Amino acid sequence: MMDQLTIDNVQRLPATEDEFGGVVVDMKEHMDVDVFRTLLKISMSRWKLQGKKGIWIKLPIYLSNLVDTAVKEGFWYHHAEPSYLMLLNWLPETVNPIPANASHIARVGAIVFNDKGELLVVQEKMGPLRGVWKISTGIIHQGEDITAGVVREVKEETGIDTEFVEVVAFSQEHNVFFGKSEVLFLCMMRPQSFEIKIQETEIEAARWMPLEEYAAQLSVQEQGLRNRIMDLCNAKAERGYSGFSPSPVTTDSNGNPSFIYFNKEDL
Amino acid sequence: MMDQLTIDNVQRLPATEDEFGGVVVDMKEHMDVDVFRTLLKISMSRWKLQGKKGIWIKLPIYLSNLVDTAVKEGFWYHHAEPSYLMLLNWLPETVNPIPANASHIARVGAIVFNDKGELLVVQEKMGPLRGVWKISTGIIHQGEDITAGVVREVKEETGIDTEFVEVVAFSQEHNVFFGKSEVLFLCMMRPQSFEIKIQETEIEAARWMPLEEYAAQLSVQEQGLRNRIMDLCNAKAERGYSGFSPSPVTTDSNGNPSFIYFNKEDL
Repeated sequence: MMDQLTIDNVQRLPATEDEFGGVVVDMKEHMDVDVFRTLLKISMSRWKLQGKKGIWIKLPIYLSNLVDTAVKEGFWYHHAEPSYLMLLNWLPETVNPIPANASHIARVGAIVFNDKGELLVVQEKMGPLRGVWKISTGIIHQGEDITAGVVREVKEETGIDTEFVEVVAFSQEHNVFFGKSEVLFLCMMRPQSFEIKIQETEIEAARWMPLEEYAAQLSVQEQGLRNRIMDLCNAKAERGYSGFSPSPVTTDSNGNPSFIYFNKEDL
Repeated sequence: MMDQLTIDNVQRLPATEDEFGGVVVDMKEHMDVDVFRTLLKISMSRWKLQGKKGIWIKLPIYLSNLVDTAVKEGFWYHHAEPSYLMLLNWLPETVNPIPANASHIARVGAIVFNDKGELLVVQEKMGPLRGVWKISTGIIHQGEDITAGVVREVKEETGIDTEFVEVVAFSQEHNVFFGKSEVLFLCMMRPQSFEIKIQETEIEAARWMPLEEYAAQLSVQEQGLRNRIMDLCNAKAERGYSGFSPSPVTTDSNGNPSFIYFNKEDL
């Protein structure tokens, strides 16, 4: 192991301060494990004296050899993505107020009717709903708007082009995937094309189905949410049901729009 | 390193099969790094021959010494929580269809009026909105219902007991926290108490504010979402605006309820 004087002259951890009194160590270069341990010990002492709070270490997956050392020095996992692991240490004696990792998956379900009042339904190749006719659903990608995600999913699964109309309902369910919760946004979509072309890898079949036929298979299983879909379809068709439709709002300093969804008809 | 015969007689990785043709290795006991490497190599060969697909390794944080070996054997990070790291390897030549880690944070904002039509507002001690009067907001905990989370947040920040009425709007914003997106549910709440008692650690001040006074400070900054809140308050007060209110549905095999939110007045 190198002595402290040599290390101080040679290397430091690549650290920047954040706006909450913390420090972010963004490791990019390969580093010997013993050097990393020594530098981390020295840095931690300094940060404690300086009254720093949250200390973050971002380790790319190609630096997985340093994970064990960071843990042994008191760090724990905050989150991980395929290409990196983020570790955290909270120095003050107070309770760590840093928000946990993302807690929800966002899923969309598409309610698409053609001119004959038939509902677009699919059968999935795998999973618990295999063999059941259901609306097209899918997971929103990271950074993807709900409106864009539901158009993409319907297109991928069925080949149908659609236009976003509104969110008619949403649900929240827990323990869906590794303890994470899910918000499902049920979206009313207007079809722009009608010829079905299924995604062979995930979808067994897709078709336009009369609503009575869809209703008839509901008695078997999972009545709750699927019956609600029926009620919503009927309310939309017969009584001018109002859902939430999107409106852009500017929220970040770069002027990037995000969307707020509300009942425009009542506003 | 032990020879293969000895290992086969002595130890195996604690693996179970999942319902999607995959294998889950749930490591709990300490294991020598060299033994782990050898067992993993043998197991991987066997799983490839068996046509297995997704191979998961769950490593508790006290087994951080094994992370580097798993990565060197071709695994990558899927997600991490404070107490464990989940690694994944996809054996087939096909594209990995396994959903990514959770992508969204769920936040709630509470619109609470007292009998005089005054809005409950707070000033936060830290962050970009420091010094601005705003509605009480907070992050939903993992596994927590929206309805429960917003009641908890208002109580924690202001001491006010409230009853959930409905979601009047929601927004989706990207790149909020380590690249993750956020869904903010704006909730109309009915106060059950009126005496304010602030949370000293996070909140600088809280008060009941006439809506005109709240509106007057809006011209300064971040008009988009905050002006929408004003519009929604006015629409709710004057024109009977309909939001989405929750209704329990049974979704999982244990009969646990989750909630679907929709426009009940139109249904």
